Amino acid sequence: MGLVNRSLVTIDDFSNEEIEAMFFLADEMSSKIKEQANVCQGKIMASLFFEPSTRTRLSFETAMHRLGGSVISAVDIGATSLAKGESLADMARIVGSYADIIVIRHPWEGAAKVVADYSGIPVINAGDGGHQHPTQTLCDLYTIRKERQTIRGLRIALWGDLKYGRTIHSLIFALAKFGTDILFCPSPGLEVPEHIIKKLIKEYGGEIERYDTSNQVSEKQSFPLDAIYITPGSPHQLAMMPNIDIQVELKTGVDALYVTRPQKERFTTAEKQGLTGKYPVVDKKLLREREFKKTLIMHPLPRVDELAYELDSDPRSMYFKQAAWGVPVRMALIALLLGAKKVDIPEAKESAHKIEYPVYKREFGVRCNNSRCVSVQESEKKYLKPEFKIVDTKPLTLRCVYCEHGIEPKFVASAEWHDGTLTQKKYHSANSHWSQKIKLENLIIFESKSEAEAHGFKPSHYAEVSHRKKIKGE
Amino acid sequence: MGLVNRSLVTIDDFSNEEIEAMFFLADEMSSKIKEQANVCQGKIMASLFFEPSTRTRLSFETAMHRLGGSVISAVDIGATSLAKGESLADMARIVGSYADIIVIRHPWEGAAKVVADYSGIPVINAGDGGHQHPTQTLCDLYTIRKERQTIRGLRIALWGDLKYGRTIHSLIFALAKFGTDILFCPSPGLEVPEHIIKKLIKEYGGEIERYDTSNQVSEKQSFPLDAIYITPGSPHQLAMMPNIDIQVELKTGVDALYVTRPQKERFTTAEKQGLTGKYPVVDKKLLREREFKKTLIMHPLPRVDELAYELDSDPRSMYFKQAAWGVPVRMALIALLLGAKKVDIPEAKESAHKIEYPVYKREFGVRCNNSRCVSVQESEKKYLKPEFKIVDTKPLTLRCVYCEHGIEPKFVASAEWHDGTLTQKKYHSANSHWSQKIKLENLIIFESKSEAEAHGFKPSHYAEVSHRKKIKGE
Amino acid sequence: MGLVNRSLVTIDDFSNEEIEAMFFLADEMSSKIKEQANVCQGKIMASLFFEPSTRTRLSFETAMHRLGGSVISAVDIGATSLAKGESLADMARIVGSYADIIVIRHPWEGAAKVVADYSGIPVINAGDGGHQHPTQTLCDLYTIRKERQTIRGLRIALWGDLKYGRTIHSLIFALAKFGTDILFCPSPGLEVPEHIIKKLIKEYGGEIERYDTSNQVSEKQSFPLDAIYITPGSPHQLAMMPNIDIQVELKTGVDALYVTRPQKERFTTAEKQGLTGKYPVVDKKLLREREFKKTLIMHPLPRVDELAYELDSDPRSMYFKQAAWGVPVRMALIALLLGAKKVDIPEAKESAHKIEYPVYKREFGVRCNNSRCVSVQESEKKYLKPEFKIVDTKPLTLRCVYCEHGIEPKFVASAEWHDGTLTQKKYHSANSHWSQKIKLENLIIFESKSEAEAHGFKPSHYAEVSHRKKIKGE
Repeated sequence: MGLVNRSLVTIDDFSNEEIEAMFFLADEMSSKIKEQANVCQGKIMASLFFEPSTRTRLSFETAMHRLGGSVISAVDIGATSLAKGESLADMARIVGSYADIIVIRHPWEGAAKVVADYSGIPVINAGDGGHQHPTQTLCDLYTIRKERQTIRGLRIALWGDLKYGRTIHSLIFALAKFGTDILFCPSPGLEVPEHIIKKLIKEYGGEIERYDTSNQVSEKQSFPLDAIYITPGSPHQLAMMPNIDIQVELKTGVDALYVTRPQKERFTTAEKQGLTGKYPVVDKKLLREREFKKTLIMHPLPRVDELAYELDSDPRSMYFKQAAWGVPVRMALIALLLGAKKVDIPEAKESAHKIEYPVYKREFGVRCNNSRCVSVQESEKKYLKPEFKIVDTKPLTLRCVYCEHGIEPKFVASAEWHDGTLTQKKYHSANSHWSQKIKLENLIIFESKSEAEAHGFKPSHYAEVSHRKKIKGE
Repeated sequence: MGLVNRSLVTIDDFSNEEIEAMFFLADEMSSKIKEQANVCQGKIMASLFFEPSTRTRLSFETAMHRLGGSVISAVDIGATSLAKGESLADMARIVGSYADIIVIRHPWEGAAKVVADYSGIPVINAGDGGHQHPTQTLCDLYTIRKERQTIRGLRIALWGDLKYGRTIHSLIFALAKFGTDILFCPSPGLEVPEHIIKKLIKEYGGEIERYDTSNQVSEKQSFPLDAIYITPGSPHQLAMMPNIDIQVELKTGVDALYVTRPQKERFTTAEKQGLTGKYPVVDKKLLREREFKKTLIMHPLPRVDELAYELDSDPRSMYFKQAAWGVPVRMALIALLLGAKKVDIPEAKESAHKIEYPVYKREFGVRCNNSRCVSVQESEKKYLKPEFKIVDTKPLTLRCVYCEHGIEPKFVASAEWHDGTLTQKKYHSANSHWSQKIKLENLIIFESKSEAEAHGFKPSHYAEVSHRKKIKGE
Repeated sequence: MGLVNRSLVTIDDFSNEEIEAMFFLADEMSSKIKEQANVCQGKIMASLFFEPSTRTRLSFETAMHRLGGSVISAVDIGATSLAKGESLADMARIVGSYADIIVIRHPWEGAAKVVADYSGIPVINAGDGGHQHPTQTLCDLYTIRKERQTIRGLRIALWGDLKYGRTIHSLIFALAKFGTDILFCPSPGLEVPEHIIKKLIKEYGGEIERYDTSNQVSEKQSFPLDAIYITPGSPHQLAMMPNIDIQVELKTGVDALYVTRPQKERFTTAEKQGLTGKYPVVDKKLLREREFKKTLIMHPLPRVDELAYELDSDPRSMYFKQAAWGVPVRMALIALLLGAKKVDIPEAKESAHKIEYPVYKREFGVRCNNSRCVSVQESEKKYLKPEFKIVDTKPLTLRCVYCEHGIEPKFVASAEWHDGTLTQKKYHSANSHWSQKIKLENLIIFESKSEAEAHGFKPSHYAEVSHRKKIKGE
């Protein structure tokens, strides 16, 4: 279907084939940078940054200028429109009538999707809260591919704060999608959240092997390996022999070590106290280890102290290249979305992770419980209906279509109750066998008893019992 | 005289003929947008926003880019130059030596006039405090004309906050100038200020019919009509039979309903408490009324709650179009002021509202009493002399040439006193018959006795008496 | 060597011949402004302002647009990157991979040098704290040359705050370099710092004559002449007869009067109180003096009250021209650094002020004691080693290569101590004769005893004695 007039909200919006085609164009553009000066002439990019980010913004604006286009820019605009209570949808529609493409960064998770839904022009997500930052991921993938000629089959280690970094979460799924093995090396206390691991296994296939880091500390303090994700089809020793020694496994080396800074601004108070001073540092000493001999050292920048300046002149250091390659990657992306360049994109192969979940959408009832989700903000609730994918039924698990957070609501009802008396309107525990019998089109989901009762529903036998059980089991 | 090198500070700076010629150019530009890409090549627009306004600024910058020009932009620059105590005149002169055209938004009323007076290049007022926002008015007029082919003879309803909206005040005079009837439908407590009504009648002719909204409430709560302005020459039933029922009058329908948000940031404390929750909402239900069958729903945006989201898909809704048409209208305006496009402008017809008032200007004596007026600011007083138009003599009424606020100073004197003794320097009540005898070139106006006395004037017999009367009469 | 790919961090980075060649190009560009529209097409300027400065920034951005180039701009970005702890070096490297040239303003002194050292592209210092603002100086020189056809041999008076203005300090050295005499007319208490005078004499040659301003006050209050710098080779009466009356000296007139505003934001609390209301004002009255008959009135702007508005229409007033000429001067500068224009630059003549001082650089020991110096900032200390020029040995005086502040450290040691026992590691007073015997390559400099002792050094006999003496002498 081509990329013209599409938006990039999450990395999953593009198939592997589309990403690879974009990378070919980026190669071409970066080798003939001067010849691109008319590609987007007369086109206008709106660069809307509701959160500061000099680096990302300047990279996008550079890309547009290199393509000969113009830029209208609004930086740190939170105060302006929010003060007047304007909604993202209105802003999107208006800017959509000015510009040809929008780049947006916003603190609310799912904000880029709303802008894409309402603006009528292509939208690029330049970071929406803790949700996604897909062009950073594209730059990461492009760097790996540029240096290793391929992404598939590589072994990539992720280092540091694997809990809070949005870059890391996007990257994990992208790496899985492209078929790499992933080594998780978190700073203690900043492990990958369980829901990321779950989604990885469920949607991308493959397996997880866990390691006991407490043993490693004595042996090999420098490389706190916590888990390995083995991509499906990987001819991997570990896949066969789960308890094999890590050192043996790593003998063949790590292809890339992706370092992240501690996202202290998202730490809890306890974390701020507990984790201070314990963050692992990547330096010359660490990189003397055998498995890092040919490893690409990557970092999305900015760095704080986790990556020593002494590495800057090391030929393995890729972080400044990652930033530099952001320009041709973004040039290719912008040119394709605007239809200013055409590329041949092969048919996407059947891929494991494209699961089509049923959609749940109702005016009332359960809402996303992520306070940073765009759908629960005062100015946006006026026009955004709650909308979820039902990703599991045991337990009932919804994923917000905006911020992609998962929730497990406790109660359900059927819109098809027996007419006549209000006493027929009953709600049930989401985990009772009754709930499975309700057809999707009749399903009503509530987060709490009081919410259900506020809508005139009364507890069924199944609401009481199974809810009590649930509590005991916790 | 053409529009080249002129400035747009208030909507009255342009004749109807000039505005219509601009609209023809906007039509042409919007239908051939790609052909405008070289119109302003090599030209630079300075976009100076001393107050945030993402929408307006991006619209102007888009317009300049679509014309092939460049933009230098300073956003929220209050802090920068004010901190150093720089005057607007100095800033205007400097930026005037860099750029080819200036777009300015500033919180001080009359600021755009000062910049136009000192910069030496064309200046466009993008909003100066509560004073004017003439390009918003141009977009409003353009939308009406685009949808109805004409403006003259239409019936336009203004809805909501008619007290504080600068958009509304500019629009009222512009509609009167173009010969429409105006229906005033204020939120109770936010009626059009009396001085606007006065100016309307005096300078634009026509009549005002008032309605008792308390009766309407019971009958037809949804449409709180408060007054109708009947343009001169309007073949209007009401003009003949003032007490005819409103419903009869409205049978033929309203051409446009112009909705405004409550300008809460300008509300008094009492208004904030008293008016909360009472603001009328325009929604599907209201628009089911017969008189709105073919009504254009307009709004300058941003909206808060006064305009329901459910109307967004209604074909009568014009508010996103209003925003979109801002681009071709501003393109035409910029191109004409820069002389990059030429249009034929017919001779302006004799128009009722062009009254030439005498000018009063002195180094000392009365000053504008509007605390947001540019002429009374610390940094500007150094070089700006007070200057007024004498718009009435009974009572003596001055209109500040900067912010256009009206004041009624209490005392006057003559510069032509009998030389010799200081006792000859007398001041009189502005309302005494003495004051009428002073020739304009000798007139000295004081706001207070103490001011007059500080300049060596003593009270005449006429000062005492009539001032005491005045106080009693209050 | 041409100017291509060079940076302008301090005014001394360019020879007189290079500056003059640039001025010729500026002349040409300003007379044919429309023909420059393709000179820098396809080039991108990054405009990085870590401190607000609308005027300077807009001047640079205008210059780049007039050359047909593009601009990526980051205004008041302090908050953004500093919050995340990013270093200037990282920022410089990243932006250096996006843009073709960087213009930077930063509050830290020496910041522009760091950006120039790490970015890999030409960098222009648009002001680094109280250190330098070389393009302002270029505009000043250009204005003088434009109006007087030459700079050499003129007599320029500097007026007002000669203590805190960075513009003034840059200008003093530039004027000396171009061979003018300088008249110092400070507001009392805001005299030129002694280290500036010292450097002037030592590096630019010439002489200083001092005047007793207390006598002048009675005679001629309006022109508080405090000192005259007589450029080498100036056929100057004062050079022969030091006590000649100032009035005689000034009979032939002042070529330019350079007025500065009080830099109140840098005043100490005592200065804020003591100096308020005493700042001299340049107005019509002052300029009636005979010596100002043909004087150019200059000011870097913004002004506060030190320069009366009544002078704006005076033909001697040059301050708006200074601002306007900033555009062609910056156009010429940008075009030359980018290699978009070539000019013939004659071989630089042997100039007095190019003294090559020995360099001192060590990981430990003395650091710059200027708290605004880039080299002592938390984020920069990680990678910047202290580095100094040794500008004097009696007393030992270092000049920081970043901020150019001078320090006189108290203790030294030799890296060539007799191996074996730690007791051989001794430190000495910097002023003892021992210190002179240490070879430069072995020199270790400490700021304090405790610092020396922390590195394992013990006091030598010479440390104790001479340090005690020093204290007595203070």
